[in-house]
Amino acid sequence: MSEFRSIVGVFPCQVHWGDCDPAGIIFYPTYFRWMDAATWALLDGVGYGAKRMRAERRAMPLVSAECRFIAPAEQGDRCEVRTRISRFGGKSFVVAHEIVRDDGAALAGGAETRVWGRFADGPGSPLKGETIPESLKALFRAM
Amino acid sequence: MSEFRSIVGVFPCQVHWGDCDPAGIIFYPTYFRWMDAATWALLDGVGYGAKRMRAERRAMPLVSAECRFIAPAEQGDRCEVRTRISRFGGKSFVVAHEIVRDDGAALAGGAETRVWGRFADGPGSPLKGETIPESLKALFRAM
Amino acid sequence: MSEFRSIVGVFPCQVHWGDCDPAGIIFYPTYFRWMDAATWALLDGVGYGAKRMRAERRAMPLVSAECRFIAPAEQGDRCEVRTRISRFGGKSFVVAHEIVRDDGAALAGGAETRVWGRFADGPGSPLKGETIPESLKALFRAM
Amino acid sequence: MSEFRSIVGVFPCQVHWGDCDPAGIIFYPTYFRWMDAATWALLDGVGYGAKRMRAERRAMPLVSAECRFIAPAEQGDRCEVRTRISRFGGKSFVVAHEIVRDDGAALAGGAETRVWGRFADGPGSPLKGETIPESLKALFRAM
Repeated sequence: MSEFRSIVGVFPCQVHWGDCDPAGIIFYPTYFRWMDAATWALLDGVGYGAKRMRAERRAMPLVSAECRFIAPAEQGDRCEVRTRISRFGGKSFVVAHEIVRDDGAALAGGAETRVWGRFADGPGSPLKGETIPESLKALFRAM
Repeated sequence: MSEFRSIVGVFPCQVHWGDCDPAGIIFYPTYFRWMDAATWALLDGVGYGAKRMRAERRAMPLVSAECRFIAPAEQGDRCEVRTRISRFGGKSFVVAHEIVRDDGAALAGGAETRVWGRFADGPGSPLKGETIPESLKALFRAM
Repeated sequence: MSEFRSIVGVFPCQVHWGDCDPAGIIFYPTYFRWMDAATWALLDGVGYGAKRMRAERRAMPLVSAECRFIAPAEQGDRCEVRTRISRFGGKSFVVAHEIVRDDGAALAGGAETRVWGRFADGPGSPLKGETIPESLKALFRAM
Repeated sequence: MSEFRSIVGVFPCQVHWGDCDPAGIIFYPTYFRWMDAATWALLDGVGYGAKRMRAERRAMPLVSAECRFIAPAEQGDRCEVRTRISRFGGKSFVVAHEIVRDDGAALAGGAETRVWGRFADGPGSPLKGETIPESLKALFRAM
């Protein structure tokens, strides 16, 4: 897999009371919830919204996920997740995320490695990876 | 619907760091997550486990849910949800829950009103309520 | 407590992949997470933002919460929570929420009964209810 | 930091309906919620329970977290998180987690890098890393 020049999606989000823990800062799995939602939003932006994904029985199961935490976020902080495809493999792809507060402070940076998959027979049935077509990659290519 | 003499299921749970908010006590939607899991556990206990529910395309969509909060729970608290069917209607039923800490303190009490439903064609397809058969009710009847 | 003519706050939200369950619709505790965030947003809108609440050692512990579920929400649905104070008591208040999809469909309606509280000595210390001053009520009064 | 021969903590958990997504398998941030809870449980096992951590104003903020996903988990699956300290640094430490289903299948493997920290003045106040004393490391050393 070589580095891919991707469009960048922007997913706005905010730290809520229930996203924080007794230390008064964001509970870290929240970042992974955001990264997942940001990946779906990136797909939606190129024409693969939730309804189409469902109709075509597609899913994006994870191989791995990681996040580095740079600065703590607090309740009320408005943020955005900046999301791009950093690499395409045969059946898998890497989604890179930067989480930035509205004052420009970098809060976290992460990545998800996912498979481009399809259910044999709808959700719950076995899920199989598919070769990612060039036409799909083209949708994410930055001009 | 008249009061039903139900068996009582016991669902053990514990308050974790990430279940608490900046006030240092349980974030209240956690109780609803527990109540949902406790209802599934009650069903599992009478032979309607996750695999069977899935195979038979069953679901239990909610009509309403409510909870009264009696005492705050803190990280580390070990609890149990005591769950029973308080009423059976034609296609719906009410699940009553008491959440009790291991020292006997009542923390919360809630109820869910649910429909006994089935998907026309698997998850994602339209969901239809079904008349609850006497044979199902009998499984929950306390001797 | 008598009915209160309240301003209405609008809290935008969206149903994400991870907010849904294997039935392909919203997992119901998500509505309570939204209602909690919407209450904090309503407070923020009248000058009681997260930072001020923290500085003044305030919290809004719950007495009870309830929700009626009217129509299922699916991944991608854009919604808003319309939030108002429906009643003020001496130390408690009721927050009413309507959850509406962007096509105008009512998805759910709920209420939280909360206490206007203060920590004796910061989060983790005992929490005491305080009489709600008229000046606070006035902030929520619709013109 | 060199490899550390650690005791292994066992944190039991189960996949609930609300932990799963529309694909019918576990929503991946759930694993990070489990890993966080398993770390707290490991600490509890050597005498640093939630109450002591709170009384001593301690916290364990994260530097990074990662997880590899090996096999999908489904509703009802009973699992355990096997947790150990894989490395100790000056002020930081690495917690390694293996998530195993009750039939022995490895579901996921992850790691958290954390700082041994203390609040200047209780939750919400600035958090400072502290040198990890030998006496603390000794508590985790396998015999």
